[in-house]
Amino acid sequence: MFVVGIDIGGMTIKAGLIDENGKILQKAVCDTLPERNYKEIVKDLSKLVHTLCEKQGISIDVLGGVGIGSPGAIDCNKGIIVYAGNLNCKNAPLVQELGKYINVPIYLGNDADCAALGETKYGSGEGVANAIMVTLGTGIGTGFIINNQILQGGLGIGGEGGHICIEVDGQQCTCGEKGCWEAYASATALIRLTKEAMAKDKNSLLHKVASEQGEVNGRTSFIAYKKGDKTAIELVNKYVKYLATGLISYVNVFRPQIIILGGGVSNEGEYFIKMVEDYVKEHAFGKSFNKICKIVGATLGNDAGIIGAGMLAMGK
Amino acid sequence: MFVVGIDIGGMTIKAGLIDENGKILQKAVCDTLPERNYKEIVKDLSKLVHTLCEKQGISIDVLGGVGIGSPGAIDCNKGIIVYAGNLNCKNAPLVQELGKYINVPIYLGNDADCAALGETKYGSGEGVANAIMVTLGTGIGTGFIINNQILQGGLGIGGEGGHICIEVDGQQCTCGEKGCWEAYASATALIRLTKEAMAKDKNSLLHKVASEQGEVNGRTSFIAYKKGDKTAIELVNKYVKYLATGLISYVNVFRPQIIILGGGVSNEGEYFIKMVEDYVKEHAFGKSFNKICKIVGATLGNDAGIIGAGMLAMGK
Repeated sequence: MFVVGIDIGGMTIKAGLIDENGKILQKAVCDTLPERNYKEIVKDLSKLVHTLCEKQGISIDVLGGVGIGSPGAIDCNKGIIVYAGNLNCKNAPLVQELGKYINVPIYLGNDADCAALGETKYGSGEGVANAIMVTLGTGIGTGFIINNQILQGGLGIGGEGGHICIEVDGQQCTCGEKGCWEAYASATALIRLTKEAMAKDKNSLLHKVASEQGEVNGRTSFIAYKKGDKTAIELVNKYVKYLATGLISYVNVFRPQIIILGGGVSNEGEYFIKMVEDYVKEHAFGKSFNKICKIVGATLGNDAGIIGAGMLAMGK
Repeated sequence: MFVVGIDIGGMTIKAGLIDENGKILQKAVCDTLPERNYKEIVKDLSKLVHTLCEKQGISIDVLGGVGIGSPGAIDCNKGIIVYAGNLNCKNAPLVQELGKYINVPIYLGNDADCAALGETKYGSGEGVANAIMVTLGTGIGTGFIINNQILQGGLGIGGEGGHICIEVDGQQCTCGEKGCWEAYASATALIRLTKEAMAKDKNSLLHKVASEQGEVNGRTSFIAYKKGDKTAIELVNKYVKYLATGLISYVNVFRPQIIILGGGVSNEGEYFIKMVEDYVKEHAFGKSFNKICKIVGATLGNDAGIIGAGMLAMGK
């Protein structure tokens, strides 16, 4: 069976033709141009599906289905993007609209959930029934897999795991509230923490690193850390603590078998993942009598979303 | 069909013979004497089951099963109490041991999970598929119902929802960590907050109320609040905020249809539940475009655990 998985990003839309083993056989991309009306975006989704089938030399009719991962609050059952700030979408019936062009089953899910599904089916969490995927980017994306199923939420829209409060009256979050985990542990938060550390210590190596990089970014702190800069060491330890604090809350509630870290920050390397895992294992509830899950880096990279969206269509 | 539901508490063990409509037909209790070896406790569980059947005039053989709710970390699949501080139990194979005395299917679950199951089947959350029950007592007990099923956790033991961090490096919790929600929003925490408020304001009505009660307890703050005491008003608002902070995190992740508050504090009345609900609805993620769940008080009281344990045996 072939399915198509589509990952709608803020900049580009990535699509893949996938076989029953989760392998991407063909790829196609287009610009998102997110300011457009969703009906224009849907026309491009249709074109992508046609392109993939042509490349593979198959008819659209033989597709098992099309799965779409979109940012924002998604009503999976109704196939609607309830709200997506990045896409300028509100109550957009994406599945119904695409159905005007393509006569195969179409499924819609949240992009972070799709990535989680992809990683637990064919990535670093392969074969694991209970997993949490956390993507550290501009914000924090989360996908919770419970007994092989995405946690959809009881009101038809998925969860927003970056917005658990870890500090009452804490740091301002983009969501309008204060103290959200995302405001402490996203890549954006790491950059803020780095700038704060630099402002406090004018002699830190962080300044030299940032100057060489031409900016302060998500890697600045780690470069100085590995060179033994004291302020950078404090900074990275603080960031690990913030990141682990949210993970520990999820470990205590979900007791997953595995946590998968994705996004740019997670590419820092094994040593960083190990620091996070050690902190979680040291502070999770019942550490003396309970098994605590392992923490790993994601392995599918940008393909996770495409593959996971395809899995929606494959019913896996 | 009849089943027996058993709720093991720190002081007493409560058992009920339940019919297929969730109605308790017969009740029996005994002391827990929690310092005993679990094998002694199991003998009493067997006696309770026999007593209930005798009272009803039925043979044990006609029972559909026996369900047991126990405090602590439970491995439901193996029927083992992994660890329960209150019971002095570690890796106790409760189901296997009770099976020596009673030849019907036996099921074991966490007591907070059973209460959540009871309330969503026959209490204030009747008929709701996705619910969270939060019991405010010495600690905070949580039960998450997802698509009519208890969230068991991927490592064989249930979640500990009172131990999500709401304040990094915050208040010391009994679990050994700092900043847990339980340390801010349990009845115990409310009493601590009350004492702190009293120490700061020697003229507060709280002193008179506590003196009349003979102690500072979970009701002190509310009594002074209702009489318009300024310090008590600040205190209750602060407690509502702490309680709501944890609830909001769960709303953002699980999007439940309902949250059920149980335990002594939740009996304070409709006005208190409404204060909590209002705060949650004002601060939950996506409040402008998402439906936010309602919050209600539990209605089954102490029977929730018995009925929920019975539901385990009924496979509901």
